Amino acid sequence: MTEPLSADELERRLRAIGVERYHDKHPFHRRLHAGGLNRGQLQAWVLNRYYYQSRIPLKDAALLSRVDDRAFRREWIGRILDHDGESDDSGGIERWLVLAEGVGLDREKVMALDGVLPATRFAVDAYVRFVRDMPLLDAVASSLTELFAPQLHEARIAALLANYDFANERTLAYFRRRLSQAPRDVAFGLAFVRREARTRDQQEAAMAALRFKTDVLWAQLDALHFAYVEPGLIPPGAFVPADRRAGQPPLSA
Amino acid sequence: MTEPLSADELERRLRAIGVERYHDKHPFHRRLHAGGLNRGQLQAWVLNRYYYQSRIPLKDAALLSRVDDRAFRREWIGRILDHDGESDDSGGIERWLVLAEGVGLDREKVMALDGVLPATRFAVDAYVRFVRDMPLLDAVASSLTELFAPQLHEARIAALLANYDFANERTLAYFRRRLSQAPRDVAFGLAFVRREARTRDQQEAAMAALRFKTDVLWAQLDALHFAYVEPGLIPPGAFVPADRRAGQPPLSA
Repeated sequence: MTEPLSADELERRLRAIGVERYHDKHPFHRRLHAGGLNRGQLQAWVLNRYYYQSRIPLKDAALLSRVDDRAFRREWIGRILDHDGESDDSGGIERWLVLAEGVGLDREKVMALDGVLPATRFAVDAYVRFVRDMPLLDAVASSLTELFAPQLHEARIAALLANYDFANERTLAYFRRRLSQAPRDVAFGLAFVRREARTRDQQEAAMAALRFKTDVLWAQLDALHFAYVEPGLIPPGAFVPADRRAGQPPLSA
Repeated sequence: MTEPLSADELERRLRAIGVERYHDKHPFHRRLHAGGLNRGQLQAWVLNRYYYQSRIPLKDAALLSRVDDRAFRREWIGRILDHDGESDDSGGIERWLVLAEGVGLDREKVMALDGVLPATRFAVDAYVRFVRDMPLLDAVASSLTELFAPQLHEARIAALLANYDFANERTLAYFRRRLSQAPRDVAFGLAFVRREARTRDQQEAAMAALRFKTDVLWAQLDALHFAYVEPGLIPPGAFVPADRRAGQPPLSA
């Protein structure tokens, strides 16, 4: 049996996964921050990412449904409350809808998941199933992309404010709020993984789970890039930006 | 296709299921309320029912993980918060542990699920799986035994206070609190089933789900009765009351 890593070494390797594979390295993401997306591409990003946002409480409830420890549940349930809010006027999902309206999307159509790319659904649904079905340690480890999120959100707020007319404190409130929520959430998840991943096999599984999660995020940007940037081949049924609606090439072009 | 029932007729039939099959009719339950259980039998009831209590938040989280509607989730999440409480000193599970101590059980052993009957686990686990896997309408309908619970809890508080030394407002706080929680919860679930069970097939499925749930409750009392009353054949590994520990007949007797 291979020797287990120290908890510090495990954490170092988990953080290295972010350096190597987090979706801030994706070309689509670089364009987003550099101000290189047009309105339709921004809308496609916000719409597709809404699907991800809308599934997060279900993912967290699936995780909750597997936890025997009351103290753990009490901590984790805060994620669902953060996302759903206390009324339809509050919570992370609502803040994402405000962003959607800010980039010119219709709130009702977004909520109806009208035009979300199939590849977005496949990736996000794979994440929800992973959290529901895999060992609890793996499920928690898959949430650790939050280690990398605050830095990204900080950069994103600055980049979007600098580069896009729609950006203001109201439309970017989702990211601003996550700056304080994510570190609290991730501290709990990281401590759990450091403590519970005792054997080397468990540690490798935790790292694989985090890699899997970076794949889930990366695949979503691949799909956006393919459909809306290059080659720009929008799949049947998916959102078509206004500037592509006239003179749109047929799918076979 | 058979005509759907009116919502009122559906509700009437759901309530009739309680009259016919709710576990207050079980001989073990009648003994409990009549003061006919000895200390060991009471302990066995409280211990096994703890397993059910401990799974309820997991069942509710499994249901939550399937609900797209934020307003629904906001309502349902209250059940988990009620059970888990805001700290280890509050919540329904804690109140059940206070009851367990009241009947002379060791809190830690109860929480470790030491000696819970296998049949209790099978029945309760079947309930959690049902809620996780069946259509949402069926999952919600299976919660409607709460239609029958307040009346039972009211009678139980009076009966236990009259018949058992351990009973007082502190040890019975679980039931007292459910008198106000259950009607609020069930109003939401009943309205959902009345509204969403539109076809006759859906209505029959909702009734079958409620019957299934009454089976889950009934089977738990069957197992208690068999092991601790008549014939009193305690399965290997299950809780053995103090008065059965000396001169206990071998399992093959």
